[in-house]
Amino acid sequence: MNTSIIRYILGSVLKIEAFLLLIPVLCGLIYHESEGTAYFAVALICLFVGILFTIRKPKENLFYLKEGCITTALSWILLSIFGAIPFVITGEIPSFLDALFETISGFTTTGASILSDVEELSHASLLWRSFTHWIGGMGVLIFLMAIIPMSGGSNINLMRAESPGPSVGKLVPKMKTTATLLYSIYIFLTALEFLILILCNMPIFDSICTAFGTAGTGGFGIKNSSIGGYSVTIQWVVTIFMILFGINFNAYFFLLIRDFKKALKMEEVRVYLGIIFASVVLISANIYQSCNSVFDAVTKSAFQVASVITTTGFSTTDFDLWPSFSKTVLVILMFIGACAGSTGGGIKVSRIIVIIKAFFKEAFSYIHPKSVRHLSIDKQPIKHDVIRSINVFFDTYIAIFVISLLLVSIEGQSMQTNLTAVIATFNNIGPGLEAVGPTQNFAFFTPLSKVVLMFDMLAGRLELFPMVLLFHPTIWKEMFERRYHSKKQ
Amino acid sequence: MNTSIIRYILGSVLKIEAFLLLIPVLCGLIYHESEGTAYFAVALICLFVGILFTIRKPKENLFYLKEGCITTALSWILLSIFGAIPFVITGEIPSFLDALFETISGFTTTGASILSDVEELSHASLLWRSFTHWIGGMGVLIFLMAIIPMSGGSNINLMRAESPGPSVGKLVPKMKTTATLLYSIYIFLTALEFLILILCNMPIFDSICTAFGTAGTGGFGIKNSSIGGYSVTIQWVVTIFMILFGINFNAYFFLLIRDFKKALKMEEVRVYLGIIFASVVLISANIYQSCNSVFDAVTKSAFQVASVITTTGFSTTDFDLWPSFSKTVLVILMFIGACAGSTGGGIKVSRIIVIIKAFFKEAFSYIHPKSVRHLSIDKQPIKHDVIRSINVFFDTYIAIFVISLLLVSIEGQSMQTNLTAVIATFNNIGPGLEAVGPTQNFAFFTPLSKVVLMFDMLAGRLELFPMVLLFHPTIWKEMFERRYHSKKQ
Repeated sequence: MNTSIIRYILGSVLKIEAFLLLIPVLCGLIYHESEGTAYFAVALICLFVGILFTIRKPKENLFYLKEGCITTALSWILLSIFGAIPFVITGEIPSFLDALFETISGFTTTGASILSDVEELSHASLLWRSFTHWIGGMGVLIFLMAIIPMSGGSNINLMRAESPGPSVGKLVPKMKTTATLLYSIYIFLTALEFLILILCNMPIFDSICTAFGTAGTGGFGIKNSSIGGYSVTIQWVVTIFMILFGINFNAYFFLLIRDFKKALKMEEVRVYLGIIFASVVLISANIYQSCNSVFDAVTKSAFQVASVITTTGFSTTDFDLWPSFSKTVLVILMFIGACAGSTGGGIKVSRIIVIIKAFFKEAFSYIHPKSVRHLSIDKQPIKHDVIRSINVFFDTYIAIFVISLLLVSIEGQSMQTNLTAVIATFNNIGPGLEAVGPTQNFAFFTPLSKVVLMFDMLAGRLELFPMVLLFHPTIWKEMFERRYHSKKQ
Repeated sequence: MNTSIIRYILGSVLKIEAFLLLIPVLCGLIYHESEGTAYFAVALICLFVGILFTIRKPKENLFYLKEGCITTALSWILLSIFGAIPFVITGEIPSFLDALFETISGFTTTGASILSDVEELSHASLLWRSFTHWIGGMGVLIFLMAIIPMSGGSNINLMRAESPGPSVGKLVPKMKTTATLLYSIYIFLTALEFLILILCNMPIFDSICTAFGTAGTGGFGIKNSSIGGYSVTIQWVVTIFMILFGINFNAYFFLLIRDFKKALKMEEVRVYLGIIFASVVLISANIYQSCNSVFDAVTKSAFQVASVITTTGFSTTDFDLWPSFSKTVLVILMFIGACAGSTGGGIKVSRIIVIIKAFFKEAFSYIHPKSVRHLSIDKQPIKHDVIRSINVFFDTYIAIFVISLLLVSIEGQSMQTNLTAVIATFNNIGPGLEAVGPTQNFAFFTPLSKVVLMFDMLAGRLELFPMVLLFHPTIWKEMFERRYHSKKQ
């Protein structure tokens, strides 16, 4: 294991975090809040540790998928640990475990909160919470790639570990350019949403935070009523942008290079939009009776469908009170998730497509045993390796899900609470049902459950394997051996 | 599609049912119950239709997996339709839909009932309910194979469609001998349980019905309190026999041919027993506080664990009142199910083993990308085809599960009721939680939900594909074309 390059990248990530922490510092200055100083102090610590980690260049450039996974997992954990400290220093979240939960929930774009009254927080902290969503949405390592040149295979393996989806969409042959392109599209769309929200008379601060939360498909609101207190126009703007940020970013790249045909023909995007449309129709029909008008029903259901399938987690209404058919549709959407290569979580639409195709292929082979059929997506054949890894993804997904559910159930909450708490964190959504419903929070869980849910949030965001590998004994053995050898040399 | 052989086999199945219906007729005679005549009348109808179907020998012997699946699915549906008629004639279950639900629940060894008071039923009907479990447990087509010689590849393809588990365990090269062996072991074990229950002072009638229910891993009780009203000794006998009937019958075959080493080393059986042991320990510790003693806790948890993992569905206590950790363990066991090649349902332990091994293989390939590892079970390599079909099984399983849940949720019961109703029927268990808990029944569901749950019971028992194929348009097109061509000739 090449520990020196891992150390070096972790140091760089911390230096970036130091820089990112200046945003809440600036916010604190603007609003004359003392909380800003806490962020400044932590920024200095990050910078110091970051410099310490990067003072020595890595000896070797060897960097495999294994290193990519470990670096990614450790980066996200480190980011969250340092990102949680300001909440503790300001006293806004006195318990470090709770602060860590909140920060992991932020970076992983989950949006599950342990706070019962977010409106008590300072502007600096509110902005930081929303900003963590924005950073986590596209990924800090992709940001790193966009700004510093790396070599030795590290780029592709970091991207594979951090990007959502079954296969990495290399937009252009050079990874640095791909990373820069992704962040440019991301920044452009965020800025666009921000401007439109301003035009809809949303206050500037609210617009910034909401745009960050939507872009990262995060879900932390800055009001206790989430987006419910804003005008219907604003709700529709947020609905549309949630859907846009759940689309595979490759589609935007195709639009950028004016290949409109390719952009419009992307199978995953079409299925994704189809699922949204069907769900909105079904839920609107189901909740119509309790709404003021058809428009009201469509507004509420469209918002909630967009929020759940993109795994954002904003809410405009307490959907825990909806009839069980609508709740079941939402729970299914929680699992499906957004497109691969978007900022959303969940299993991802493309994986669902491959699985459904594999099913039809098998059913067909029962009927015509001698025929040979190949699976394809966007008219490209799906490689056997991809299908296999999707199947293993599912198996791993189910294994983590079951173990988490079992551990969380020890504390004796209702089964629906446990089930939806795990679903909502593992798929990076945020709110679940019953005791973790949209009007509730996660504060009541025992430390054990909180640790399990934190693991789930990270595993969900990093597509399972980086977090699973981190707990593999071989990895630790290798890390130790490496150190041991280094000392001997 | 070779429709003539399908017709011929369906006719034979009906003739067998005519013969099987004589058991409740006999029971009616013994207890001087008028209900016996209803069974006799239906037996005559079955015989008549059966003769009508088999009067012409099939023209061709061509018989592929497709024909095997369709024949199996249709056989089970036909069996259930005719088996339901007596309940309607006697007026014990006036609605045909309810009677069909009860009969499908019987044949598929589910044990989910629509009756609120089973003790009202006649002895003839009670015996018929329990007897359907026994027939369904090992399978009527395997019974057919054991008694009449068939050729043209029909045997192996029928067995593949009807036997539980990912691969067919051909005990001996000749299918007829395999079928006879399986039924001999089955009859021997059932008789053994019956005798032991008699020795434990259980009334003869109760012993017969309980032995049938245990052997088929069915779960219909003849008392409203299921097995709860019997002595602790009887409860332990039932516990042990439930576990025995959940074991892969290959193990008994190895014992029979005195290959003790092979029998004791079967990986699936060891894992199965390991899961049972671990679950009993966990649940006993969890429910201990509400029990009279450690022995009481172990008795209750062992019974319930055995009942749920083997998908039998008997109960001695209302486990819906247990703490959520125990309920979560039970729900997980509901999915796992018994061994392949047993009479139990669920996903099957061997599939779970393959999936866990595939997961470790993949994790290993992340760490050592260049190594090549092969999956094996019982030291035999697992063929690539088996792994693929297990994965497709899972995908199909999830698809049916999600669609069923969605359809059942339309009527607006609580999510836990809907969820466990689908789990309990699809995995052929019987009782679920909340409104379908062990002290409740399935009568309240709307006809739509009942139809969905009936489909789930059949799909679960026949391992998905036969029922899925039955709804494939190509199959119907082929059936029609075949008829059309026949007429033209």
